[in-house]
Amino acid sequence: MSDLPRFGAGLWHFASYLDRYATDGYAPAVTTLEQIARAGEVEDLSVVDVPYPFTEGVTVDQVKQALADHGLEAIGVTPEIYMRKYRMGAFTNPDEALRKEAIAFLNEAADVVRALGATYLKVWPGQDGWDYPFQVSHAEQWRLAVDGMRELAQANPDIKIVIEYKPREPRNKMFWDSAAKTALGIKEMGVDNVGVLLDFGHALYGGESPAAAAQLLIDQGLLWGMDVNDNLRGWDDDMVVGTVHPVEVFEFFYTLKINNWEGVWQLDQFPFREDTVEAANLSIRFLKGLHRALDELDIDALREAQSRQDALAAQKLVQDVLFTCLRSDA
Amino acid sequence: MSDLPRFGAGLWHFASYLDRYATDGYAPAVTTLEQIARAGEVEDLSVVDVPYPFTEGVTVDQVKQALADHGLEAIGVTPEIYMRKYRMGAFTNPDEALRKEAIAFLNEAADVVRALGATYLKVWPGQDGWDYPFQVSHAEQWRLAVDGMRELAQANPDIKIVIEYKPREPRNKMFWDSAAKTALGIKEMGVDNVGVLLDFGHALYGGESPAAAAQLLIDQGLLWGMDVNDNLRGWDDDMVVGTVHPVEVFEFFYTLKINNWEGVWQLDQFPFREDTVEAANLSIRFLKGLHRALDELDIDALREAQSRQDALAAQKLVQDVLFTCLRSDA
Amino acid sequence: MSDLPRFGAGLWHFASYLDRYATDGYAPAVTTLEQIARAGEVEDLSVVDVPYPFTEGVTVDQVKQALADHGLEAIGVTPEIYMRKYRMGAFTNPDEALRKEAIAFLNEAADVVRALGATYLKVWPGQDGWDYPFQVSHAEQWRLAVDGMRELAQANPDIKIVIEYKPREPRNKMFWDSAAKTALGIKEMGVDNVGVLLDFGHALYGGESPAAAAQLLIDQGLLWGMDVNDNLRGWDDDMVVGTVHPVEVFEFFYTLKINNWEGVWQLDQFPFREDTVEAANLSIRFLKGLHRALDELDIDALREAQSRQDALAAQKLVQDVLFTCLRSDA
Amino acid sequence: MSDLPRFGAGLWHFASYLDRYATDGYAPAVTTLEQIARAGEVEDLSVVDVPYPFTEGVTVDQVKQALADHGLEAIGVTPEIYMRKYRMGAFTNPDEALRKEAIAFLNEAADVVRALGATYLKVWPGQDGWDYPFQVSHAEQWRLAVDGMRELAQANPDIKIVIEYKPREPRNKMFWDSAAKTALGIKEMGVDNVGVLLDFGHALYGGESPAAAAQLLIDQGLLWGMDVNDNLRGWDDDMVVGTVHPVEVFEFFYTLKINNWEGVWQLDQFPFREDTVEAANLSIRFLKGLHRALDELDIDALREAQSRQDALAAQKLVQDVLFTCLRSDA
Repeated sequence: MSDLPRFGAGLWHFASYLDRYATDGYAPAVTTLEQIARAGEVEDLSVVDVPYPFTEGVTVDQVKQALADHGLEAIGVTPEIYMRKYRMGAFTNPDEALRKEAIAFLNEAADVVRALGATYLKVWPGQDGWDYPFQVSHAEQWRLAVDGMRELAQANPDIKIVIEYKPREPRNKMFWDSAAKTALGIKEMGVDNVGVLLDFGHALYGGESPAAAAQLLIDQGLLWGMDVNDNLRGWDDDMVVGTVHPVEVFEFFYTLKINNWEGVWQLDQFPFREDTVEAANLSIRFLKGLHRALDELDIDALREAQSRQDALAAQKLVQDVLFTCLRSDA
Repeated sequence: MSDLPRFGAGLWHFASYLDRYATDGYAPAVTTLEQIARAGEVEDLSVVDVPYPFTEGVTVDQVKQALADHGLEAIGVTPEIYMRKYRMGAFTNPDEALRKEAIAFLNEAADVVRALGATYLKVWPGQDGWDYPFQVSHAEQWRLAVDGMRELAQANPDIKIVIEYKPREPRNKMFWDSAAKTALGIKEMGVDNVGVLLDFGHALYGGESPAAAAQLLIDQGLLWGMDVNDNLRGWDDDMVVGTVHPVEVFEFFYTLKINNWEGVWQLDQFPFREDTVEAANLSIRFLKGLHRALDELDIDALREAQSRQDALAAQKLVQDVLFTCLRSDA
Repeated sequence: MSDLPRFGAGLWHFASYLDRYATDGYAPAVTTLEQIARAGEVEDLSVVDVPYPFTEGVTVDQVKQALADHGLEAIGVTPEIYMRKYRMGAFTNPDEALRKEAIAFLNEAADVVRALGATYLKVWPGQDGWDYPFQVSHAEQWRLAVDGMRELAQANPDIKIVIEYKPREPRNKMFWDSAAKTALGIKEMGVDNVGVLLDFGHALYGGESPAAAAQLLIDQGLLWGMDVNDNLRGWDDDMVVGTVHPVEVFEFFYTLKINNWEGVWQLDQFPFREDTVEAANLSIRFLKGLHRALDELDIDALREAQSRQDALAAQKLVQDVLFTCLRSDA
Repeated sequence: MSDLPRFGAGLWHFASYLDRYATDGYAPAVTTLEQIARAGEVEDLSVVDVPYPFTEGVTVDQVKQALADHGLEAIGVTPEIYMRKYRMGAFTNPDEALRKEAIAFLNEAADVVRALGATYLKVWPGQDGWDYPFQVSHAEQWRLAVDGMRELAQANPDIKIVIEYKPREPRNKMFWDSAAKTALGIKEMGVDNVGVLLDFGHALYGGESPAAAAQLLIDQGLLWGMDVNDNLRGWDDDMVVGTVHPVEVFEFFYTLKINNWEGVWQLDQFPFREDTVEAANLSIRFLKGLHRALDELDIDALREAQSRQDALAAQKLVQDVLFTCLRSDA
């Protein structure tokens, strides 16, 4: 049996959440350090992606120590460029002063990446986009989005930056909305330290095949990170991975395997009403099942079926290992 | 020209909002009384739907006075049964004690309806539903949802109750999710003081034709209130009415007209990043345009085209009046 | 282990197909008798739903004999009321003469039900609906759809009629589009020989939970037949069951089981580019896996988890049996 | 007032259609020459996109003559690489021999472009893609799709080739599915005679903003053709333009105007149940209204509103001209 991958999670997986209705939050607030402690309770979790800024008063050193105390490492840092201040965008904000502040803040976050020894700065410009027809100049948005990211990359040549694309929410349409558009934009930047973090759920509800999106990014040399979760295909529900679309999750990991992609298998879930630690445990239990299924899959036979586009033969091979992957006799 | 309808709005139209990302809110908080003041600034606004409870410390009498001061009346009261406490549901909460508390709170809200002289108690059980496959017993949900609403209705025979259905959000699936399901449930209640508030946007993104849903509810004697707004058809974006789907909004109001439905034309919009008063003004300007278009529409000719399912003839008649409805020469 | 259910399929599963692009068809035409022969090749297939009219020249007696020869029975008859003649609708066609012809043809199909000893007449009014805003009078469509079905039912009191609802295709919107709307319409008919055939895929891409739709129909006493298949949740792709949404298919069959629903597990798939017999075999292999999983599922524990809306506990119980259901050691 | 654009249509607009249900077709078959005659009846139609092969027995010379007789020119030629033979794909067919035949056939179609003096060869590889998870190697599909198109382009350096992308149908997922992916693939081809034909409806139901997609392609130098129509945003309904989404159509044409894009305004509609000539006339009537609205739009004011992302101000300016564009007093 092949070695297990390292498992990770966005630290927000262990936070509490609110939305436009339950404005008092689905659970009491959880500080950065408490989130780390919870992450430490998850079996098999090795790394976390850390939002920045931390809870007020918490220092980088405290975070570093807490991670060490709980046997965790930081894989990434996610600057929160989607709060009120940046509600009209960070990179594409119509106000030049705010765009500059956003870049300054992102540079500060890059220092946190250095301090924590993380692998990447994750940039998710959640408020960059538009809501209404005719609201923005699309030409201008492209220019600002691409130029701003290039500027950030050139200011931090020692840091890997990954863009996480998403079709929508919180803006009705987000600028970086698909694998192909993100790859196209990165090419235009002409830098070599910007790549992509593919979120399985974002690809799924955006109408992509997550496996095809992963392959495209791998072929472009840009798949530098990933998140998994699940949804009902119409929204970024950030549900527990495998609870709705196990077949497509499996195809996603199959694609990573045949390309020898060996990064962290990471969770980006929002357990609004669930126990956050249990949600992670259930996820990792399933991911281990998938890992076993990949070990058992007859990949040569599958490739042969694919060479004929024989969907039935391919599915049979897949079902043989997927629908046995949690048996206890192994 | 026929008389203009009365225009209304959910009072939350004039609030500020937050979501799971911009947890600090898209704008500073706005109190109930401030919201009323803003509503009063809107040209042509006559009534509001008032969320309950009010901002802490605000009394019913203060609300009553503020409404009077700004020339407004309360059309409805909307109890907030979608906060943390009811995150697993109000009527269908698995905890019997919480279900009882929900009913008690709803009865309290019914008293506010009486105190404000409002037309209806609007019940939107936003947290009643489910998120995951296998999470709930669907038979039990139906029983609790129907029995609870009947109990509420029977405890308040002098009050009209309207259920606002919605496909999803904040639960991944909501229990009262369509016009037909709501009508079916109301019939099973066997009471005569429960009807439906149809939200145009909810019908649209739920895959209904809002006009067909309105006709169905009218034919069942259940269309007791309505809200309009707009969206991109995949989510409840609560955008300004007419900015995306003017044709289907027009068909919706046409349906009301030919059925002599003469209630309030009401806004349910969430202007996250916009000026809330301006958003209402722009909406009503458009609705007045639709009202003029309805006056000018050759309804006999349209009916004749429909009697042949002649889509082209019907659309031509519609376009003639819709795409001229904001001309200034009237 | 509990007894296996009877498996069935729409006979069209073994036909060839065309669409608006491949107008020459994805495969050579297959006659009714050839379709029966193919159905006979499927392991474990007991019943078929037979479209009517048959291929030109084929008689009811020939069909009867062919079914017997291949060890099959007819569960239903599906009259083709969606060809050119009825392109504007069968029950709701604007032309009264065509409505009468449709009813006459349906009565003829009812005779085929009698002749074949089938369980039901399946009515799928694929062309009843509308395409454009403003194209039809929704009030008139309801009246014609409900009255026509009542007339058919009353003319055939000895025959069970099942309506198969579907959100759209071939019309952009179909009249019978959801479980609740169909139940509401049937109630208004005031007859006792009209029920519903629930197609899993139609429910899924219509935004329903198929399990919740099944429960609703069972509670209304109306779930008289069902079809399974799969799709990508945006269209009626009629793919092989379990290839995309195994979890929700499992919840659907779980719902049938706990309600002691003991009808046929039936396929409605369109293997455009696949071997039709192999597609059925793969489907039934998976359905047998689900049957085993249902036998092994700890239903008491699941009900207990559901009584708390504990999604994680419920999913864990489900995954335990679903992701082991094809193991060979049984 | 600015000059009117030239209007065009796919010649299939004037054909008859069938689908998987109405296999006898929605209307009697219409030959290539009859389609041209119908196109000639449309007011203001100047050019057509001609499918190839023509109806059996019809020659290129006959087509040329018929076009001339009806005052039409060919803007493009659309080879039918989506019939049974290519049901598993043209460029990405798993059978090398079929791929070669496809290229040979496309070269033949390029000769028809030359013979008709058309502007481009339109390539829409409708069957290139996949239906099931795990059915294909996504890496291999990319390689075959890109290499095949490059080969075609290099074999016809004197011909402009436009790829029409589409999210799905007839395959459940199509390979060329978005503006960005198509642009990315074209860049990899390294040729200068391949561009994009943007179909408004494809962009819309694929979740793109058609205006943003147009701007992206213009900025990449690749927007060489376009089609308009409308749909309900979930499928390629190919409805009459403006009947559902007039605002977004207007934003699309606004984008073309501010970029000085001066090509043909072309229809790609499938009037299944409508009079095909009337459908075109109604479309062009609306497009002329949009053209007038563009003339009247205060573009400087709109740009200023966009520079602040002021959605309300932008919409107000747009509504001022859109909802007056069909007034008769001009």
